Amino acid sequence: MKLNLRTPTIKAFSTLILITIFGPSKLTAQNQTPPNFIIIFADDLGYGDIGPFGHPTIKTPHLDRMAYEGQKWTNFYVGASVCTPSRAALLTGRLPVRSGMASHKSRVLFPDSKYGLPENEITLAEQLKDLGYSTACIGKWHLGHKEPYLPTNQGFDYYFGIPYSNDMDRIQGDEYKNYWSRSNDSIKTEHFNVPLLRNTEIIERPANQNTITTRYSNEAVSYIKKNKDKPFFIYLAHNLPHIPLFASEAFKGKSKRGLYGDVVEEIDNGIGNILKTLKEEDLAKNTIVVFTSDNGPWLSFGLNGGSAGLLKAGKGTTWEGGMRVPTVFWGPGHIKPGVVTDIGSTMDLFTTFTQWAGGKISQDRIIDGIDLTKSLTENRESERDHMFYYRGDEIYAVRLKNYKAHFVTQGAYGQFGERIEHNKPLLYDLNKDPSENFDISADHPEIILEIQKLVASHNSNMIKGKDQLAERE
Amino acid sequence: MKLNLRTPTIKAFSTLILITIFGPSKLTAQNQTPPNFIIIFADDLGYGDIGPFGHPTIKTPHLDRMAYEGQKWTNFYVGASVCTPSRAALLTGRLPVRSGMASHKSRVLFPDSKYGLPENEITLAEQLKDLGYSTACIGKWHLGHKEPYLPTNQGFDYYFGIPYSNDMDRIQGDEYKNYWSRSNDSIKTEHFNVPLLRNTEIIERPANQNTITTRYSNEAVSYIKKNKDKPFFIYLAHNLPHIPLFASEAFKGKSKRGLYGDVVEEIDNGIGNILKTLKEEDLAKNTIVVFTSDNGPWLSFGLNGGSAGLLKAGKGTTWEGGMRVPTVFWGPGHIKPGVVTDIGSTMDLFTTFTQWAGGKISQDRIIDGIDLTKSLTENRESERDHMFYYRGDEIYAVRLKNYKAHFVTQGAYGQFGERIEHNKPLLYDLNKDPSENFDISADHPEIILEIQKLVASHNSNMIKGKDQLAERE
Repeated sequence: MKLNLRTPTIKAFSTLILITIFGPSKLTAQNQTPPNFIIIFADDLGYGDIGPFGHPTIKTPHLDRMAYEGQKWTNFYVGASVCTPSRAALLTGRLPVRSGMASHKSRVLFPDSKYGLPENEITLAEQLKDLGYSTACIGKWHLGHKEPYLPTNQGFDYYFGIPYSNDMDRIQGDEYKNYWSRSNDSIKTEHFNVPLLRNTEIIERPANQNTITTRYSNEAVSYIKKNKDKPFFIYLAHNLPHIPLFASEAFKGKSKRGLYGDVVEEIDNGIGNILKTLKEEDLAKNTIVVFTSDNGPWLSFGLNGGSAGLLKAGKGTTWEGGMRVPTVFWGPGHIKPGVVTDIGSTMDLFTTFTQWAGGKISQDRIIDGIDLTKSLTENRESERDHMFYYRGDEIYAVRLKNYKAHFVTQGAYGQFGERIEHNKPLLYDLNKDPSENFDISADHPEIILEIQKLVASHNSNMIKGKDQLAERE
Repeated sequence: MKLNLRTPTIKAFSTLILITIFGPSKLTAQNQTPPNFIIIFADDLGYGDIGPFGHPTIKTPHLDRMAYEGQKWTNFYVGASVCTPSRAALLTGRLPVRSGMASHKSRVLFPDSKYGLPENEITLAEQLKDLGYSTACIGKWHLGHKEPYLPTNQGFDYYFGIPYSNDMDRIQGDEYKNYWSRSNDSIKTEHFNVPLLRNTEIIERPANQNTITTRYSNEAVSYIKKNKDKPFFIYLAHNLPHIPLFASEAFKGKSKRGLYGDVVEEIDNGIGNILKTLKEEDLAKNTIVVFTSDNGPWLSFGLNGGSAGLLKAGKGTTWEGGMRVPTVFWGPGHIKPGVVTDIGSTMDLFTTFTQWAGGKISQDRIIDGIDLTKSLTENRESERDHMFYYRGDEIYAVRLKNYKAHFVTQGAYGQFGERIEHNKPLLYDLNKDPSENFDISADHPEIILEIQKLVASHNSNMIKGKDQLAERE
């Protein structure tokens, strides 16, 4: 199960030559069991909503520790600023426009959507399963709730969760109207008739969302204990803090930040239990845990939405607040501690974890993820030098190194303004000006030209997937 | 030098009874040499400008470590939102309006100001010196540059620094105009004819600001080495990152955040050297180091000013961005690690350190500082439940527990709007809404009433000091 998990490649062969020259330390690494991977994915959690990223009243001691013992990535991006395409990007390592999971007709999937992530897409779970991993998806899926699209058909051995957003299947009533006017008190979990699935079976409907966060974390703990004898991959995608917000009795009213903070602290508590389990089971040294979020905060919900910290705007936009997410890697046996200010993306998890596990990246399609292993294990500079900020299937902005050009700007959900096409693109230096306050396009026409060339090259290779989001039943 | 530093009090007597009952551990603590205190005070550094408070590209590994090994205080306030009164508040433990160091005629002292901090004010340095401490002031003073007001006449054995802001004594020229239009390249340290003093003598003029940050840190290192045999107090008040910005050759161009980041990273590097010295000299376990800032970022200087993170506005205002500052306490022998979300103030350092050193707080005047020792050493809840936000000698806002009422709002330096008096005060819940986005005054008239009572009580005891700032030569 060890070496034979790795497909021999020319790269592996040249590593072998290096080992011969430089001694046996690399060989030892080669012989190690491939690491376990746990991705903890929060929903609509903003850049500023956890301790290591500066929130003043939400207490996240476990994330604080992960950030200090591991790596805090401060320029880490999702592939889209809303749920469905962001999740497709993470699991396929591809911009969602390639798989048809980004559309100009519908931003996400709904309970009456016909399709989901196409079966011919390769997910990280499929890659790792092929390499001998046990694979579990726990939590929100949102890549198609019909059976052909469910996690168990996309490389996961096991699924436990709500297959789409927790505010769907609404039972409309006066209480719900109150929610949208920013009071959460009269909102009950019964008002959202969302199903809870185990594998492909509905085991609870409406899912009791009061306890869902801790139940998800507990499922992860159980899965670790049951599957510790071979490598495992857990994709733990919390439904919260997406609205409507619910917390267990043990957390409700406990944080200073209100219900939103209660939810985040309950997630952090679950992380603590997962790390504790890894230590108790002697798995901590060979497990990589990454925490991140699917997009920025849903600002139109006021105090029931999160905060992007010093970044501009939030969910649904291509400003930094929409697509830069608070990200922490932890793994005491592998991750070199530090703060990483280079660019990374959730799409890179696909490539990084696949290759780390000894797998190969298919050459039959364009993969946007790059391998971050050397950044993670040796603190080397990330090779990612650009990011495309799509809204639906259209490029709105592009980051190249420290510069970001906006070709189109638009707010979301009634905030941050109407669509504006910039014939003269806006330009910001994100390293110096993370809040996108000071347009420097007039000073750097050469940078805009360089970015325009990058876009032209990107577009010339772009084959957009057939729109999977638009069709409803 | 040990026990006789402590003035016996009834409190000490009851502690003795407790020792008799609960064993000798407290007695050991009583016998300890009083701790050394080092206050590191940055100038115009914003809430969001260091790693532990979420800056994405300024790297502060030493502050990161201090925050993780010590306490990060996320609701810590200065006594005023500009230099002179903020420094008076820290050193006297009193709102600056009481000492005449806050004025509606002039916000700070200038090189032609006549007066300074009145000699009959008691400074923290005077308190500690009386208790046998060696005391040093290194860096910016700004509490009067004429001899009666200099540090050496206010309780400090030693002074090394620029006695006011680094942008004063300007030699006007075209280069300077460029500075205000947000380019720093053509600005030279020679354009600011500020003096550098050792004790009361000018040793360099203009002070070479390129090297000043590291020279200040090095002075602190030397002072520690020379004064390690009895308790010491170092007040290290950097002139930077107040504009104009200058960095040593070793740091210039090194940070991703531009010159502003270079400066902050140079300050952090000096902190690293100070902590290293404390360890090498076996002083780390009995030294308390606190890092904080004198007020929020000077936002009108664009990228040459800092960032308040998720807080509103900056220097010069009574919004949170003006007066809440990034604060870290470190002291591995005393400080209980954690994140503290309770309220604290730089004024509390006066009371806390005085009492910790065994001294008494004078009963002949109102002291606004409270004792934070139990929060620092035992993580107990801070006893501070309110803060007054003065602008000059007028109350603009008041925080009581999590609520903040604004009676007057006003921007500063041409930003964030004109003065508005609110007959119906604005009200924010700062725990839930640190960015002051959602006015909840209509929902909580009872809180506003309670705050108005607090203000009335405060005003009834207020004796304003004679204005020390207005008169010029």
